[in-house]
Amino acid sequence: MTEENKPKGRAAVFRGYGQPFTIEEVEIPQPKGEQVVVRTAGCGLCHTDLHIWLGELPGVPEKVPSVLGHEPSGYVAAKGDAVPDRVKIGMPVLVQGGYYLEDDIYTLKGLNQMAVKKSQSWTGAYGLYGGCYAEYFLVPSYRYLVSAEGLDDLAAAAVLTDAGLTPYRAVKTALKLVGEFAEPGDVVVAVGVGGLGSFGVQWANVLAPHLDVVAVDAKEEALEFARKVGKIYALVDAKRGDPAKAVAEAAAGRKIVAVLDFVGAEQTISKYIDLLSPEGVYVVVGLGGVRGSFPIADLVINEKKIVGSLWGSVADLTEVVDYARRRAVNYGGLVTKRWKLDEINEAFQAMRRGQYVGRMVVAP
Amino acid sequence: MTEENKPKGRAAVFRGYGQPFTIEEVEIPQPKGEQVVVRTAGCGLCHTDLHIWLGELPGVPEKVPSVLGHEPSGYVAAKGDAVPDRVKIGMPVLVQGGYYLEDDIYTLKGLNQMAVKKSQSWTGAYGLYGGCYAEYFLVPSYRYLVSAEGLDDLAAAAVLTDAGLTPYRAVKTALKLVGEFAEPGDVVVAVGVGGLGSFGVQWANVLAPHLDVVAVDAKEEALEFARKVGKIYALVDAKRGDPAKAVAEAAAGRKIVAVLDFVGAEQTISKYIDLLSPEGVYVVVGLGGVRGSFPIADLVINEKKIVGSLWGSVADLTEVVDYARRRAVNYGGLVTKRWKLDEINEAFQAMRRGQYVGRMVVAP
Amino acid sequence: MTEENKPKGRAAVFRGYGQPFTIEEVEIPQPKGEQVVVRTAGCGLCHTDLHIWLGELPGVPEKVPSVLGHEPSGYVAAKGDAVPDRVKIGMPVLVQGGYYLEDDIYTLKGLNQMAVKKSQSWTGAYGLYGGCYAEYFLVPSYRYLVSAEGLDDLAAAAVLTDAGLTPYRAVKTALKLVGEFAEPGDVVVAVGVGGLGSFGVQWANVLAPHLDVVAVDAKEEALEFARKVGKIYALVDAKRGDPAKAVAEAAAGRKIVAVLDFVGAEQTISKYIDLLSPEGVYVVVGLGGVRGSFPIADLVINEKKIVGSLWGSVADLTEVVDYARRRAVNYGGLVTKRWKLDEINEAFQAMRRGQYVGRMVVAP
Amino acid sequence: MTEENKPKGRAAVFRGYGQPFTIEEVEIPQPKGEQVVVRTAGCGLCHTDLHIWLGELPGVPEKVPSVLGHEPSGYVAAKGDAVPDRVKIGMPVLVQGGYYLEDDIYTLKGLNQMAVKKSQSWTGAYGLYGGCYAEYFLVPSYRYLVSAEGLDDLAAAAVLTDAGLTPYRAVKTALKLVGEFAEPGDVVVAVGVGGLGSFGVQWANVLAPHLDVVAVDAKEEALEFARKVGKIYALVDAKRGDPAKAVAEAAAGRKIVAVLDFVGAEQTISKYIDLLSPEGVYVVVGLGGVRGSFPIADLVINEKKIVGSLWGSVADLTEVVDYARRRAVNYGGLVTKRWKLDEINEAFQAMRRGQYVGRMVVAP
Repeated sequence: MTEENKPKGRAAVFRGYGQPFTIEEVEIPQPKGEQVVVRTAGCGLCHTDLHIWLGELPGVPEKVPSVLGHEPSGYVAAKGDAVPDRVKIGMPVLVQGGYYLEDDIYTLKGLNQMAVKKSQSWTGAYGLYGGCYAEYFLVPSYRYLVSAEGLDDLAAAAVLTDAGLTPYRAVKTALKLVGEFAEPGDVVVAVGVGGLGSFGVQWANVLAPHLDVVAVDAKEEALEFARKVGKIYALVDAKRGDPAKAVAEAAAGRKIVAVLDFVGAEQTISKYIDLLSPEGVYVVVGLGGVRGSFPIADLVINEKKIVGSLWGSVADLTEVVDYARRRAVNYGGLVTKRWKLDEINEAFQAMRRGQYVGRMVVAP
Repeated sequence: MTEENKPKGRAAVFRGYGQPFTIEEVEIPQPKGEQVVVRTAGCGLCHTDLHIWLGELPGVPEKVPSVLGHEPSGYVAAKGDAVPDRVKIGMPVLVQGGYYLEDDIYTLKGLNQMAVKKSQSWTGAYGLYGGCYAEYFLVPSYRYLVSAEGLDDLAAAAVLTDAGLTPYRAVKTALKLVGEFAEPGDVVVAVGVGGLGSFGVQWANVLAPHLDVVAVDAKEEALEFARKVGKIYALVDAKRGDPAKAVAEAAAGRKIVAVLDFVGAEQTISKYIDLLSPEGVYVVVGLGGVRGSFPIADLVINEKKIVGSLWGSVADLTEVVDYARRRAVNYGGLVTKRWKLDEINEAFQAMRRGQYVGRMVVAP
Repeated sequence: MTEENKPKGRAAVFRGYGQPFTIEEVEIPQPKGEQVVVRTAGCGLCHTDLHIWLGELPGVPEKVPSVLGHEPSGYVAAKGDAVPDRVKIGMPVLVQGGYYLEDDIYTLKGLNQMAVKKSQSWTGAYGLYGGCYAEYFLVPSYRYLVSAEGLDDLAAAAVLTDAGLTPYRAVKTALKLVGEFAEPGDVVVAVGVGGLGSFGVQWANVLAPHLDVVAVDAKEEALEFARKVGKIYALVDAKRGDPAKAVAEAAAGRKIVAVLDFVGAEQTISKYIDLLSPEGVYVVVGLGGVRGSFPIADLVINEKKIVGSLWGSVADLTEVVDYARRRAVNYGGLVTKRWKLDEINEAFQAMRRGQYVGRMVVAP
Repeated sequence: MTEENKPKGRAAVFRGYGQPFTIEEVEIPQPKGEQVVVRTAGCGLCHTDLHIWLGELPGVPEKVPSVLGHEPSGYVAAKGDAVPDRVKIGMPVLVQGGYYLEDDIYTLKGLNQMAVKKSQSWTGAYGLYGGCYAEYFLVPSYRYLVSAEGLDDLAAAAVLTDAGLTPYRAVKTALKLVGEFAEPGDVVVAVGVGGLGSFGVQWANVLAPHLDVVAVDAKEEALEFARKVGKIYALVDAKRGDPAKAVAEAAAGRKIVAVLDFVGAEQTISKYIDLLSPEGVYVVVGLGGVRGSFPIADLVINEKKIVGSLWGSVADLTEVVDYARRRAVNYGGLVTKRWKLDEINEAFQAMRRGQYVGRMVVAP
């Protein structure tokens, strides 16, 4: 790559908590070794970014200025000399942004997002690698790329890399742990059906069509939206009456074998774990609270399980894209609003107000 | 079976909370269908019985008078006409007392102790079937028997059916869930090394010889005892300093992949769950508290798991006996005191005082 | 049960190899203990019965006269005194006929059909218990019954107990063993799509909607029929050209992760095992040959697996019925011809001629 | 790395089938990117090399001249600029030589040795990367290295990378597939207890101490040797009488749950597969024949499994080294003869004669 074609581009630069992003012309490093530069097609707007921007995640980002955004799609723009031939310039890709600093037993066994030295280097939030609220961004290795050939709407497909991927892993984990005790006609409960939860409903439909999904949310419009994109057996409004009782009534005596908690707060955990049948699994995905609690005797006597599920690996993302390619999952319909890069401050305000259900993307 | 050989025998009859057991001559029902009458060889003294006797488990036993005791070994004394030939009169057996009232998906898949309609009919505590603090007791089906052929000390082997079985299942569960992330040299922590915990250490030795065991207890004599019967890498006195820190120091940077909590209280759960490595498993066995809590972000980000483990199935007990037959597990050494049936009141007082480490049996 | 209501009924009695069945009035034993008498709703016509009748399975049946038929549905007509209340007179049931003589490690872990002492006592072929080519038949324990409440067509549902159940287990086995190496868009091949194979296609659709099914058969009408009841990506006529090549072309570079062989002959095994991708699984279901062979280096270098799958357990049948209840599987459409009991000789001739695709039932 | 410290070294160069290796001074390429140059400590002498040298593996090696040897240990001598800091110059390492040309679903999920484009680039046999019959050799990425810190005898430890690793994976596979049907006291059979088989016995001891090992070999000295390094329940001389019968007699009615076949010929496969109990697993490791066969009805009716197992992944090797570090496996005792690099022709003649039991290494 010569000086002439070195990629440069505009980026939305984070200048401090609560301060407007500034759109600046930024120089993109020349990729070395396994590195790849991606030209952004879409960058999903994730609430984590909002929390960062508001200063609610102390110490993040590590450096100021920096570029946020960790839900990217795009095209390979440049590549280092150790990148294999199959990764071609112009190829559409999704990027799993869970970069790690050092390989260990987790990365060796395929869980890149579980590396012990992880979050420090995750894309777009932690300083080492710039995120996708930019025209171009650097990826530390081609190993984080998943080919997006065959996807219709690359900008929208960006949301598959976090909003789509995270519940995919959560549902896989739930099904694996419930194992032979999830019988056809049993029930899975999705708590919180915003961006991630709406995907969660879909993944339950795709991976466990034999289970009925009950969706719980405190927002009517979220429930309605989830019903449009997924197949839901019953909707429960968390603000009315006793929602746990309403879920139990919807189950009507059938086993509730899994709860997918996209909220992740004491309020949800302590309420819905009681509903689980023996051998049932409670998967915590959301980070909406500090501590959660459970009744000890019930956990033991019914051999219940509470597990955390984190994002997803590159291998998980590969499977997600395979499903999207087969149109088994609707990601385009999840994207309810698209912004230009220089509208990013407006976009963050809309996210703060919770103005749009589903997911938004910045498509530079 | 004629009237003449109908088994009768003495039993320690529970007459009310805190009241002395009375030794009475009791008529044993004639076994019908799949039923079997067992002549007791040993009946382990379990703290659950103490809690029942002290009235700490409301509603248990369901009927008064009744006969307690749920950790039995003995000899087949009589059998119904639907009991197969392989179950012979005089055959030494252990009994898994997790009787169920109605078959369901759990019993169908081999988890008799997980039946939805379970505890009501468990042996020796819940009224329908008398327990083993007696010379004879009735078992509702030969399916709960495990042949004890080849075991040296049948009276002591009684403790395998609960104190041995429960941690066996817990260790199996832990290893299954940790899966490929427990590498040789990693660490498993046993919290509470009384009767069950001492077996837990042994099962970790047997099923995961590649892991090092760190044992935690508030009693020095329990720690010393556990060291005698199992192979322990490090002992941690829970009363001194910061025991969680001491466990971490013993691990010395190695992954702590499982905690086996035989106490099961908020105090232990909230303290030791922080130690787990990513993908690590916290197995709650003890029922020492009402609610337990965990840090949500840590659970999610490190994909930790908290699971309950309940007793064990007949299949689990079969495996336990197979190990005992191969002398892979030391159960005789666990039995530190034997009582006659008419010493049962003295035995309960000794249990209440915590006078003996390990496990005691009543051997009529 | 008094003498008056003792069930009696007509049965098609086997009188010798190749000899016409005789319709006789037979006395049904009074059920004892866990036994149940079932009034037949339907009894599937299985080719195994044809092989028995033709004398192609030496030593089967063990006794003459006897009553064949091992694919039954019906209503509980009478029950022994150890049968629980939930099993009510008149209740519609399917029967898993894999009765065992003696419990062992396989039955203990839920695999009744895998008992070491098994085939001798299987229903309808092996002498101890009469089969369902009769108005009534005796079942040795209520444990072999699965409630058929909610199924629309009980007579047709009989075929779920073998033609439906056997491929269900085979597909589950294949998916379990392929595990994480079956990605969306990969291919599964069904070799032989008669009665079992047509169900096999459906189970692949239901359990692995993310995989494409390629069906191979030497009969055009079987291929057409399978296409009607299942979702098939490509049909391959085994009589034209090189069918293995045709399958590979249909796969078009995608991984072939499983072959379900409902023929089970050297001709099929040696031909289609070469198609499997690394970590792929070859499940043998059919018993169409004596020995099968495979290339050693290919098996090792690609870590291929060849496994047998036998019928299914009561637990498997429970799941099958759950799916049928949700209309996830089409069993009614599989039944292309129904016979009266006294037409059984005509029915066997039709089976011998291969006159009907799909499955036939006798509905007395 | 400057010109001055560019590693050079002597290598045993393959010049043609059956021709003596020539010891030559060879220039080592300067490592780029993720590449590493290793100074050889030991290079195991594997029969595959003998087959290559004799011309029995057509097309291997791809290039002449080339350097063979794929069982290496050594010290990091030089490294490219994309190699992380934790890989330090001088660090002792083992190398898993299953290099792949292109990442795919297998490598993504941790099975580097299963890459579709694999053998072409494996170390030491296939031309792209030189093997370890040399003082130095180039490794395409630090990802193939496993730290050997804590191993006593680095030269001998070379044999862990193939002779140790391959049976480790085979035993893990067997145990995983047999699952809950391998009970304490059951039997595993090792067919062929040369270099790999002797490790196989040890891994069965380590990973399944609850199973008894029966070893079969046609050489008395191999049986004796295996007994020295492992714990064997019974030895069977394959040359005397009916060895399959002798194995069955040693099992004495216990289930034979796994056969590990280190020979891999029709003669062994067809003989020993009959011994397996229901749900038993036959793992083929050796490549001693062209095709193997099995009885179809027995495979189906007993749900037996035949599977291939290939070498091992870097993750597998990590575990192997962890066990060696804990002295759970005896690799030093397996190495019965060490040669200097310039004795390699003599070493190959000794290997051809089968002069030494166990394994030999070249330690330059």
